[in-house]
Amino acid sequence: MLKLYSMPSSGNSYKVRLLLAKRAILFEHIAAEDGSGVTTSAEFLALAPKGKVPLVVFEDGKTLSESNAILTHFGEGSRFWPTDPLARSRMLAWMFWEQNAHETTVAVRGGILSYEKNAAKRMPEILGPLLEAGHGALAVMDEQLDRTPYLAADAISLADICLYAYTHSADDKGGFDLSRFPAIKEWLRRVEADDGHVPLDWLPGE
Amino acid sequence: MLKLYSMPSSGNSYKVRLLLAKRAILFEHIAAEDGSGVTTSAEFLALAPKGKVPLVVFEDGKTLSESNAILTHFGEGSRFWPTDPLARSRMLAWMFWEQNAHETTVAVRGGILSYEKNAAKRMPEILGPLLEAGHGALAVMDEQLDRTPYLAADAISLADICLYAYTHSADDKGGFDLSRFPAIKEWLRRVEADDGHVPLDWLPGE
Repeated sequence: MLKLYSMPSSGNSYKVRLLLAKRAILFEHIAAEDGSGVTTSAEFLALAPKGKVPLVVFEDGKTLSESNAILTHFGEGSRFWPTDPLARSRMLAWMFWEQNAHETTVAVRGGILSYEKNAAKRMPEILGPLLEAGHGALAVMDEQLDRTPYLAADAISLADICLYAYTHSADDKGGFDLSRFPAIKEWLRRVEADDGHVPLDWLPGE
Repeated sequence: MLKLYSMPSSGNSYKVRLLLAKRAILFEHIAAEDGSGVTTSAEFLALAPKGKVPLVVFEDGKTLSESNAILTHFGEGSRFWPTDPLARSRMLAWMFWEQNAHETTVAVRGGILSYEKNAAKRMPEILGPLLEAGHGALAVMDEQLDRTPYLAADAISLADICLYAYTHSADDKGGFDLSRFPAIKEWLRRVEADDGHVPLDWLPGE
């Protein structure tokens, strides 16, 4: 069976669990929470030289890393993969943008505030610029979602699954003010109402 | 004709020019160097709400942003697009990683040192961590290129075009020590020897 190493509390890992759940793809889950020792084990490092999750191990032992590449691998050809080439490219544009402008601000600030190992980074000169840059990224999403129901197309795509992961907890975890972004709030509810949605803490077999 | 707004000195823009040149796709180039006023013009902002280049404008007026999404749009089906699904996903994995771990360190440090508008950021507490993180990203590439001739497959792919852009100037622009990464140095020569290579300062019609 397909194996997935993923971190229960992480948005990058959640994206992958959410897509696999929505597509009803069975997988064995290996929880790799920070501090559990899983990602620092010799067994894991032999599979993933970068030492990072999420990581997929196929039945033949081959591996694939990077959350958004795992999304494209398991999303291609599904209802989350636009058939129109330009819509597909725009979906990927949002996913590249997520790794560059959103994960590095919204997720990073959430990680600093949520994980005790990052307590030393809770300084105004770090948190302040991240708040401003994260609100800027959220404003870019809000502007798009004010014009279209989903990020890349008229229907849900991998871009929405990708960006839902860290956006839905941007307020609770990262201290961002989502009330400033009404189009994002409505989109979060649309994504949650889509067939097969599972929350962050869902794990297979539960 | 296809139009490309791109910044002559930027790696994200160069990636796109390099692929279009290699694929012999004709395009009208609109130079959008920082300070030229192009990206702050009302005409440009109507096309690109984020105000960023590279930006492609198709003949029907539709647009596409994000350098790596432009690469996939014009690279799909070409010799830079692996036919094996796992190789293709690994190519995209390197491209997502580039936006998250490489562009944010190698390119950002180069941008601080190269552009006068960033002179105020030339402080040890900014440059030091970027040097360390950038060398870490280069080490990840070097480890892969020590095992395989190209990043995602046995043949050149979009991942190599993508990561060549900022890596080839990491020493000159960013002050990174490429002599520590012999596999990267050999790979840079391989990419440059591939058919149709053009340097950073190439522009169409010249």
